Amino acid sequence: MTTSPRSPYIAAVGSGRAVPVATRRRAREVGRAIADAGAVLVCGGLGGVMEAACRGAHDGGGLTVGILPGLDRAEANRYVDIAVPTGLGEVRNALVVRAADAVVALSGEYGTLSEIALALQAGIPVVGLDTWELRRGGSPVDAVVLAQSPAQAVQLALGLVKRA
Amino acid sequence: MTTSPRSPYIAAVGSGRAVPVATRRRAREVGRAIADAGAVLVCGGLGGVMEAACRGAHDGGGLTVGILPGLDRAEANRYVDIAVPTGLGEVRNALVVRAADAVVALSGEYGTLSEIALALQAGIPVVGLDTWELRRGGSPVDAVVLAQSPAQAVQLALGLVKRA
Amino acid sequence: MTTSPRSPYIAAVGSGRAVPVATRRRAREVGRAIADAGAVLVCGGLGGVMEAACRGAHDGGGLTVGILPGLDRAEANRYVDIAVPTGLGEVRNALVVRAADAVVALSGEYGTLSEIALALQAGIPVVGLDTWELRRGGSPVDAVVLAQSPAQAVQLALGLVKRA
Amino acid sequence: MTTSPRSPYIAAVGSGRAVPVATRRRAREVGRAIADAGAVLVCGGLGGVMEAACRGAHDGGGLTVGILPGLDRAEANRYVDIAVPTGLGEVRNALVVRAADAVVALSGEYGTLSEIALALQAGIPVVGLDTWELRRGGSPVDAVVLAQSPAQAVQLALGLVKRA
Repeated sequence: MTTSPRSPYIAAVGSGRAVPVATRRRAREVGRAIADAGAVLVCGGLGGVMEAACRGAHDGGGLTVGILPGLDRAEANRYVDIAVPTGLGEVRNALVVRAADAVVALSGEYGTLSEIALALQAGIPVVGLDTWELRRGGSPVDAVVLAQSPAQAVQLALGLVKRA
Repeated sequence: MTTSPRSPYIAAVGSGRAVPVATRRRAREVGRAIADAGAVLVCGGLGGVMEAACRGAHDGGGLTVGILPGLDRAEANRYVDIAVPTGLGEVRNALVVRAADAVVALSGEYGTLSEIALALQAGIPVVGLDTWELRRGGSPVDAVVLAQSPAQAVQLALGLVKRA
Repeated sequence: MTTSPRSPYIAAVGSGRAVPVATRRRAREVGRAIADAGAVLVCGGLGGVMEAACRGAHDGGGLTVGILPGLDRAEANRYVDIAVPTGLGEVRNALVVRAADAVVALSGEYGTLSEIALALQAGIPVVGLDTWELRRGGSPVDAVVLAQSPAQAVQLALGLVKRA
Repeated sequence: MTTSPRSPYIAAVGSGRAVPVATRRRAREVGRAIADAGAVLVCGGLGGVMEAACRGAHDGGGLTVGILPGLDRAEANRYVDIAVPTGLGEVRNALVVRAADAVVALSGEYGTLSEIALALQAGIPVVGLDTWELRRGGSPVDAVVLAQSPAQAVQLALGLVKRA
């Protein structure tokens, strides 16, 4: 594996359900780009976007960490290298975020929205790819950095990682 | 206090920072309406919207529960009757939501957005009063029930509480 | 209720299963003594020792808080005034401890042992009544303050509460 | 690394403080034996026993996971391959346990005792090496499987791992 203990950790968050082929392809490219950069991919460990991202990272020889909602390691998708069962349900969303130096959000449902919000609350940068748009008082809130492609999303995320 | 062990629990979520007078007044009215309905008010226990809501509930003789991010009970606002320090930081947002049968969101920042999202993920109804607007793919996502007034918000929330 | 927002919070921890009559009676006396002192009783909210302690506090007009392992408020025993469902399973043991200024442990099983240990790790005083004995290297570790009666246990716990 | 996605995960728990040379050596041997068996070593990621165990696993070409109490990945000892910052403080003890198929406890303080207790509560097997002795009602409680050497401890732990 190409990662080292001091690699950045990038979370890939998105729906755990079956997703359209185009979304799956992009998730896979995100994972591949994370691996190519020598970063560790962190995710919720389940299917859909998470599985596709893990698969991409796996293809690229990267390391994948799945922080699972349940107690059973077997619920991890097959491309998760390190599976951490938590038994916390959606409370684990906050731990996926805390484990990451930056978050790439792809498409997604309410769980993804919570991860975007928790990251922003914690000051962890978020890059979005065709994901939730945030508005308040009728105006857009530009807190999520928008990317046009998987490669750009990962590049932006890596650039935003704060280094002490 | 007018609550009973079988009262509904309604979470009032919103910014912990200083908020405009109009927002504070509405938060207070939300709290008062929760108390008047004999419901328990749950919140994150801090200032801003949380404090105003607790104050309103307190004025109405209701019971208020604050699930705090830190370890020190003293960080609770003065209108919290039961303070539960957790030391979990923003991970406690998910516990505020889980402790509630329905959520009323007022205005708010990223923490509030995470609570809205976590509630929606968990199937807990959310009523919004001048709060985050959710969009995906350029279209609004109508998951939050919109209210026009504090009284209506609480009424809607109580109506949405699922009873087994 | 005789509690005030600045009351001490005392956790009563012990088995959630059916317990012998003598244990149940002592748990009830612990709860009663907590209420008589104007303290809030915190517990895991289930049966056995927890229910008996809540009942005692209830008899004395005190306030009881149950921090539940599951997601359903209905799993609380009938003497819990404020039920906080967490869905965290035994992870919530740490939250019972964190919510308390001191812990009284009665009898108990592994969950109780974990609560004793977590309290000691966090520097929260623990009083034991016929509960786990700790040994290391063949010698007793005197970290738990031993009480001979329910009344004495609560008195010791209140005396150990650190005030800022 | 010699691990595979379906490797067993063995937690090595013990004091995070400086420990005597003999304890450190045994922790290192535990880590080495975990790696030699192709298992993943899980721990709290800090110093003392955790660091020595990680070092041993590292020497043996194994993979080490550190589930950290703080928010900063840099608090991990240098032999942690995958660092998961949680920001949960000692609440993370329960997650170390949940991430493991079996626990080996070496020496240790209250945090270790809590991990032993949480594992036993959750039905996860615990092997002890010169660690806490549990007694109740004046009699030993034989819930922890006692080992005489690091190699035996790991062998026993692996044998106790339940396979679905």
